[in-house]
Amino acid sequence: MPSDLHSPSIEPKRGIDPWAPLIDSRRDGWTMPQQFYGDAAVYQADLDRIWRQGWLFAGHTCEIRRPGDYFLVEMDADSILIIRGEEGVIHGLYNVCRHRGSLICDEPCGHVSKLVCPYHQWSYALDGRLSSWRGMQPELNKADFALRTVHVREVEGLIFINLASNPIPFDPARECLSPILRPQGLARAKVAKSVDYLVQANWKIVWENNRECFHCNANHPQYIKANFDHYNADDTTPRIRSEIAAAVRRGEDKWASEGLASTHRDPGMTTFPDAENGIWFSANRTPLVDGWLSESMTGKQVAPLMGDYRDPDVGTVRVRALPNFWNHSSCDHGVSTRLLPGGPRLTRIRVSWLVDENAVEGRDYELADIMPFWQLTSEQDWVICERQQKGINSTAYAPGPYSTFKEYNVEGFVKWYLRMLQRP
Amino acid sequence: MPSDLHSPSIEPKRGIDPWAPLIDSRRDGWTMPQQFYGDAAVYQADLDRIWRQGWLFAGHTCEIRRPGDYFLVEMDADSILIIRGEEGVIHGLYNVCRHRGSLICDEPCGHVSKLVCPYHQWSYALDGRLSSWRGMQPELNKADFALRTVHVREVEGLIFINLASNPIPFDPARECLSPILRPQGLARAKVAKSVDYLVQANWKIVWENNRECFHCNANHPQYIKANFDHYNADDTTPRIRSEIAAAVRRGEDKWASEGLASTHRDPGMTTFPDAENGIWFSANRTPLVDGWLSESMTGKQVAPLMGDYRDPDVGTVRVRALPNFWNHSSCDHGVSTRLLPGGPRLTRIRVSWLVDENAVEGRDYELADIMPFWQLTSEQDWVICERQQKGINSTAYAPGPYSTFKEYNVEGFVKWYLRMLQRP
Amino acid sequence: MPSDLHSPSIEPKRGIDPWAPLIDSRRDGWTMPQQFYGDAAVYQADLDRIWRQGWLFAGHTCEIRRPGDYFLVEMDADSILIIRGEEGVIHGLYNVCRHRGSLICDEPCGHVSKLVCPYHQWSYALDGRLSSWRGMQPELNKADFALRTVHVREVEGLIFINLASNPIPFDPARECLSPILRPQGLARAKVAKSVDYLVQANWKIVWENNRECFHCNANHPQYIKANFDHYNADDTTPRIRSEIAAAVRRGEDKWASEGLASTHRDPGMTTFPDAENGIWFSANRTPLVDGWLSESMTGKQVAPLMGDYRDPDVGTVRVRALPNFWNHSSCDHGVSTRLLPGGPRLTRIRVSWLVDENAVEGRDYELADIMPFWQLTSEQDWVICERQQKGINSTAYAPGPYSTFKEYNVEGFVKWYLRMLQRP
Repeated sequence: MPSDLHSPSIEPKRGIDPWAPLIDSRRDGWTMPQQFYGDAAVYQADLDRIWRQGWLFAGHTCEIRRPGDYFLVEMDADSILIIRGEEGVIHGLYNVCRHRGSLICDEPCGHVSKLVCPYHQWSYALDGRLSSWRGMQPELNKADFALRTVHVREVEGLIFINLASNPIPFDPARECLSPILRPQGLARAKVAKSVDYLVQANWKIVWENNRECFHCNANHPQYIKANFDHYNADDTTPRIRSEIAAAVRRGEDKWASEGLASTHRDPGMTTFPDAENGIWFSANRTPLVDGWLSESMTGKQVAPLMGDYRDPDVGTVRVRALPNFWNHSSCDHGVSTRLLPGGPRLTRIRVSWLVDENAVEGRDYELADIMPFWQLTSEQDWVICERQQKGINSTAYAPGPYSTFKEYNVEGFVKWYLRMLQRP
Repeated sequence: MPSDLHSPSIEPKRGIDPWAPLIDSRRDGWTMPQQFYGDAAVYQADLDRIWRQGWLFAGHTCEIRRPGDYFLVEMDADSILIIRGEEGVIHGLYNVCRHRGSLICDEPCGHVSKLVCPYHQWSYALDGRLSSWRGMQPELNKADFALRTVHVREVEGLIFINLASNPIPFDPARECLSPILRPQGLARAKVAKSVDYLVQANWKIVWENNRECFHCNANHPQYIKANFDHYNADDTTPRIRSEIAAAVRRGEDKWASEGLASTHRDPGMTTFPDAENGIWFSANRTPLVDGWLSESMTGKQVAPLMGDYRDPDVGTVRVRALPNFWNHSSCDHGVSTRLLPGGPRLTRIRVSWLVDENAVEGRDYELADIMPFWQLTSEQDWVICERQQKGINSTAYAPGPYSTFKEYNVEGFVKWYLRMLQRP
Repeated sequence: MPSDLHSPSIEPKRGIDPWAPLIDSRRDGWTMPQQFYGDAAVYQADLDRIWRQGWLFAGHTCEIRRPGDYFLVEMDADSILIIRGEEGVIHGLYNVCRHRGSLICDEPCGHVSKLVCPYHQWSYALDGRLSSWRGMQPELNKADFALRTVHVREVEGLIFINLASNPIPFDPARECLSPILRPQGLARAKVAKSVDYLVQANWKIVWENNRECFHCNANHPQYIKANFDHYNADDTTPRIRSEIAAAVRRGEDKWASEGLASTHRDPGMTTFPDAENGIWFSANRTPLVDGWLSESMTGKQVAPLMGDYRDPDVGTVRVRALPNFWNHSSCDHGVSTRLLPGGPRLTRIRVSWLVDENAVEGRDYELADIMPFWQLTSEQDWVICERQQKGINSTAYAPGPYSTFKEYNVEGFVKWYLRMLQRP
């Protein structure tokens, strides 16, 4: 992680980091102590040191095609406007009027020609500059009252924002994600459907669940039919190992001939994140099980090919970015998951299904075909997370050991998290 | 504000007032820092130094006509009985049995012959004195167990209470309010309807909204048709100024001839409150727009004349009293608004519509005629207040400047509030 | 109370007990100060010093007849499995997987052949020993990861648990309760119905209500027809006293001839608890009013005789155990009440109706006959408790005096409680 991550907006406290004793009390390779999963002060530290320092996935560029289109991101108590400006540039603006603090936009998404506060009609341009304020005294200077901004970056149709004044560089993420994502064509997609969830679990529980497929066999009957992840273990038979190897070879040869990048050779879970090397993002293309062309219930293609694809046999693209995003994309649709913290034991999650921008519901695809695979898998995970949170709340909870075969990425996530939580 | 306001019930802490640094951090003429609008400790200070020190509007004398009639006032966690005693005197009693602390009355209003605790039947007279307690040992003295009382004052049909042991004088308020209110006849009225609201905003946000009509043009389409307040600005044309002046002259001449007091010459918002001069109350009679005889949707009279009125052209009476009351009254009906704090970000609000005590619903008036003007206006304000609270909760909120033309009374309210919050 | 109660699991803090000043501020014979009934820190102390030290009623042995049958006890944030093991022994296990802390069982009761965590299938035997954990590294030792246990004791069909590492002895309770309870046959009963309540009152308010019948005349019209408790006062007439004495004599003679133990001679409320002598449990058999054979609405027998009874005229058996249990049993059915703390002002209460294990609903009994007497009485009490909690929340609440005639057992409860709260 670049060394400037921890530098800005938190007032350095004198002496010892207050979190050092708690961080030190954690045993390598074991789950974290209870406080990390529900304590209000830890949650506040997570907001300050991770959520207000890192790059957050906000949404898709295709959700705001025209100047004036916007959507809101609700991060803890902060409402942030993601809005396309006059020149097509996307702006990130706090949805808080500089006059008396009213929210400006109520609706979660919409279209405006300018941003007019409904309270006293202070009006802002789409880039946040204050353009009119009838009734205010002339000695005040409009230029002092632009909406507060957040940093915005786009990569292949994904919008990321950063709330720090001096963010860590985004370029390494762009260089990693762009080659894998480009052919998927998310920038030329549309959101067919979004579903919002309130999950009663700390956001780190949701990530820990995401970082292993140890739980897949018993909990994700759909997912394991299409994917190899649950084999990344000590118990995979030689026959399965050779099947997987063959699938990888076939895929890589085919994709290379079609110009599709594919960085990762192991169809099991890629190693992610990597605290040592500052890796909070990753992407790879990996084969699906033989006979699966799409992460649909049947494995069949269920919508028109997306992006640059000319053949449905493109495996699956997977992207992750900490602290709040993952995407699984097939030849015909993509699924983005966005996490936002809502409290020490509450995570707001949006799952969005994307298809080609020209696809027409009812003619080219049906929601009933594209949604169930990931809707079921996601909801199975939310049940797991809430059940784990309840157990961790108990006085009987004590850290337990991770499987070195199957939970190495959970350990990697915890290492990344604890490093972020520490000040330099 | 009389100097004895801050003297009693709060234990003076040694040294510096703990609120001084926060108060000092506020910039004159700008909105207050975030903590004032949601912090639990500030809320507690508000309760101690303002709500338990000032005179609170409780309700109307006409709600409890007969001895034994009562209603409850729920102020934060305190339930207070407002009850008419045997001799017709109104008593304010904490609704908490002196035996084991049970609430005595459950229903928000009703009639009782005596106050009998439903738990063990300790019985109290209507003035709170303990009259019987079967089963208690004779060595205890009944006189030691009267219900705790609060101070009560009536003025022209309005009931005010004070929870301090040694309240500030009420007489200045009575002298101010009585001449304006008397002809309205609220003491000879009845409550036609009350509506209760839970507004998710700090009580001061509700007041700040009340103290300006800068927001009226865009938010109160009904209100601005009948009133001149929204013109109290830098942008009023000479034609409008002369129309207003003419309306004022006509009104004052006419009302003087009818013996109706009218203290305030400016039909815009009167200056209120006034921290320097201890003014927490005010009243004035002011004209409505030409063609409006009542604050109804059509401007037409919608109920029988109230009080002493013999002619509907009496303008509008307006009363305010901090921290929790305002009333707008027309020739034919009056509307009282009562605020009560329910938490750092919660205000319980009751709006009550009053008509002449002899008016009969369905014959002399319809709720559908008397209610919408103020029901719409009030509910428009609650939406505004909740939206502002959400914005203020954001980390992006920072104080903004008040318009010196249009928000001078908001500044006045803030000055009053901060003075009350300080200890002498 | 045995001297080892306070010895174990709470870290002794240096110097003065932090609760000493609050405890000392309580006046003998008066209700406790407000903090005891809602303060979060007092609630935490109650959990540590009382709920995690004392024996808690969990449920009935007849709820888990076969090996693998289980039910959950939810004590504050702790979920505890009560499960019958292979050899028929009942185990108390924290329902928290030793791997990543997930809850293992979701359903409040059920049957399992082994305990399999739904997350990663760690599998535990019915006694909590870890039996399999596919995918974990061999250097870990299964024996280190058994489910955490709680102590379990059975007495005459009642299951008690203790969460302390080194519990106070249970034998004194067994010796007291067993002779009275044995003929009732609760171990050969079945639960005909349970009803769960969320009562918005501190658990001590529920107990204080339970410890007096001063409130019965006005609040429990059903209960007082069948019982003598409400006469335990200064105001009982000589005629009633002699009726009661006659009932007691008749009962005791009859029961003695039938071999039914009856320890208590006074049909009013027995003295309980007794802090001086460490008495947190008690049981007695006492007569019902003439003409009542059962605590049913009519007083008639409403289900087959239970246990050893051969004649319905057995009076009523009453059992209490602090901090969370009471039972009233008639010849034909028994009613158990279990309290569990849910927060400073929240108590989870389950009321269960038991009948003979061979009784068949619809043929031998109807729920409509066995339930109303105690369902009405219980729900009347919950209303009382919630009303008292609201009053105690008020700033106007101050401690009041207990009746020495009628509330001596409430004083006894408070004395017991305050002694438990203190460290030795």
